[in-house]
Amino acid sequence: MPGEAERIERIASLARRSSDDLILGIGDDAAIIRKNDTHWWLISTDSQIENVHFRRDYTPPRMLGHKALAVNLSDLAAMGGTPRFALLSLNLPKDIEQSFVDEILVGMVALADQYSTILVGGDIAASGNGLAMTITIIGECPAGRALRRDGAKLGDLIFATGRLGLAAIGLQLLQRGHRYDPALPIHLQQLILAHLQPTPRLEIGQRLAERNLATSLIDISDGLSTDLYHICQASGVGAIVYAEDIPVATHVPEEVNTTALENALNGGEDYELLFTVPRGRVAQIESLRAQFNDLPITLIGEITSEPGRMYLERAGERTPLRPRGHDHLRQEE
Amino acid sequence: MPGEAERIERIASLARRSSDDLILGIGDDAAIIRKNDTHWWLISTDSQIENVHFRRDYTPPRMLGHKALAVNLSDLAAMGGTPRFALLSLNLPKDIEQSFVDEILVGMVALADQYSTILVGGDIAASGNGLAMTITIIGECPAGRALRRDGAKLGDLIFATGRLGLAAIGLQLLQRGHRYDPALPIHLQQLILAHLQPTPRLEIGQRLAERNLATSLIDISDGLSTDLYHICQASGVGAIVYAEDIPVATHVPEEVNTTALENALNGGEDYELLFTVPRGRVAQIESLRAQFNDLPITLIGEITSEPGRMYLERAGERTPLRPRGHDHLRQEE
Repeated sequence: MPGEAERIERIASLARRSSDDLILGIGDDAAIIRKNDTHWWLISTDSQIENVHFRRDYTPPRMLGHKALAVNLSDLAAMGGTPRFALLSLNLPKDIEQSFVDEILVGMVALADQYSTILVGGDIAASGNGLAMTITIIGECPAGRALRRDGAKLGDLIFATGRLGLAAIGLQLLQRGHRYDPALPIHLQQLILAHLQPTPRLEIGQRLAERNLATSLIDISDGLSTDLYHICQASGVGAIVYAEDIPVATHVPEEVNTTALENALNGGEDYELLFTVPRGRVAQIESLRAQFNDLPITLIGEITSEPGRMYLERAGERTPLRPRGHDHLRQEE
Repeated sequence: MPGEAERIERIASLARRSSDDLILGIGDDAAIIRKNDTHWWLISTDSQIENVHFRRDYTPPRMLGHKALAVNLSDLAAMGGTPRFALLSLNLPKDIEQSFVDEILVGMVALADQYSTILVGGDIAASGNGLAMTITIIGECPAGRALRRDGAKLGDLIFATGRLGLAAIGLQLLQRGHRYDPALPIHLQQLILAHLQPTPRLEIGQRLAERNLATSLIDISDGLSTDLYHICQASGVGAIVYAEDIPVATHVPEEVNTTALENALNGGEDYELLFTVPRGRVAQIESLRAQFNDLPITLIGEITSEPGRMYLERAGERTPLRPRGHDHLRQEE
């Protein structure tokens, strides 16, 4: 089965059309539509599907509602946008309890309220098999300020927010039978919550866009290696990543048989931001750090000239870095 | 399992919020958001799910792509809107051929092009079980001109476009083993195509809105009895429907063991428009008929004062008419 990128390219080649008020169509984290002279709309959609993205047995329904919206908010964060409205399409299997559905909504609306986002419509249908939620998110940004994947330039420095790989490690713990429990040791709880209840990085995305600090921006939904590759492909550049500088999990439980670095590179679902900054503006990242003092903003590499070529530098040695992040479609083979 | 209306009300009660530029939230065919001083955005979402809305064995993939978009365009028609942009969320099962997916897109884009609608984004994910497509449609209308469900008034006359019940009869033929075939007798083909390839009534919806002809408007997706009930509920009125005047199928194949009238009242998926017109403006419906001479526009009843009470009048006798149209959720019990 072809991977997601190939399928999207195929659809884009069939469906690409232009229009006066369409600024950007298929291919980035969100489409851009002109709202008025001062603002643009940003629109994106993303699904959470049972037994593909989550299992009901290890997912508290409030956290599921939170996450279904959070992954969409993250797509707006990845453009520097501010969310405004959401639509929810809910496919309900026969065996689902009404209380489970209510809790999903409570979790979703709590996160929506946090970002003044209003659920304005949707659709409910029976599902042949399994629970599925598709959310469409509508946000806005000042005209001309959206941050895309395609602006990275030779010499730009690469930054990431937060710590990477935690969500993938948390998922492995859940798959091994661990469950979310407020009484868990803090280091396990943090890993599990990274998977179940990700935080969309909206504020920092907005600051990057407002101050014109980044030349490209994406959210890390598929894993650092794959999302950096998306930037490289779209921008026609390459990249070097310094392995020692990647902010990885500080604790990997023994039962997880992958390293912190492997999870950071290829794990997926971190929903942190990855962005490139021209060297001349790097000093301004300091003032950003001062504003977000709980959130690491880490220099992890730089943009090179060879299109699509990525390297990992470790102990002074460079090895090719391939996009090996999460792809639900390709994994099905 | 509670029905769709009850579930939507539950979500609306949890999620209802107000905002300066939100004109109408959950509950109608589309949400309304202020675009600028002269125009409003209309936004809606709708899914087609395998083995709930369609079966792959009887659905040619081009028609499936057409229908997935058509049901969304119909939601805009039901507000008097003009479509502009669409997003597609595609959940793909393991066993699906690439050529099947390509054909879906070809059918979808052909219909989109017909209405100058551009596919601007979406999401592709693996599906645990079965093909599912969720489309979000974005359209617009002149500010103040959207037609809603809640404006029907005592004494208004009720009109429907097209013929009702054909899609439900066509579905029964498909379930009985008939297949779409250009060589079929025309009366069978028409029934099957009514189900597989519905026509969204965008132009007439737009004319009704522009000329301020209708006090309420809805598309008949769930069946006349249920969609008329939606208008009655939202408007706080009742209705009488004249059974003999309903434009039903002229031919019902013997193997279908329901009548043309039953299918028209409760069948669902016709995607015709149902609207109410003040008596003083009924003369203007004539000029509309002249413009749409292939499409019947039929007077089928009138609005009464008792909230939520509907009657069917046949041979001079009135019997209660209950909303017995299609509800995938309720049917699951």
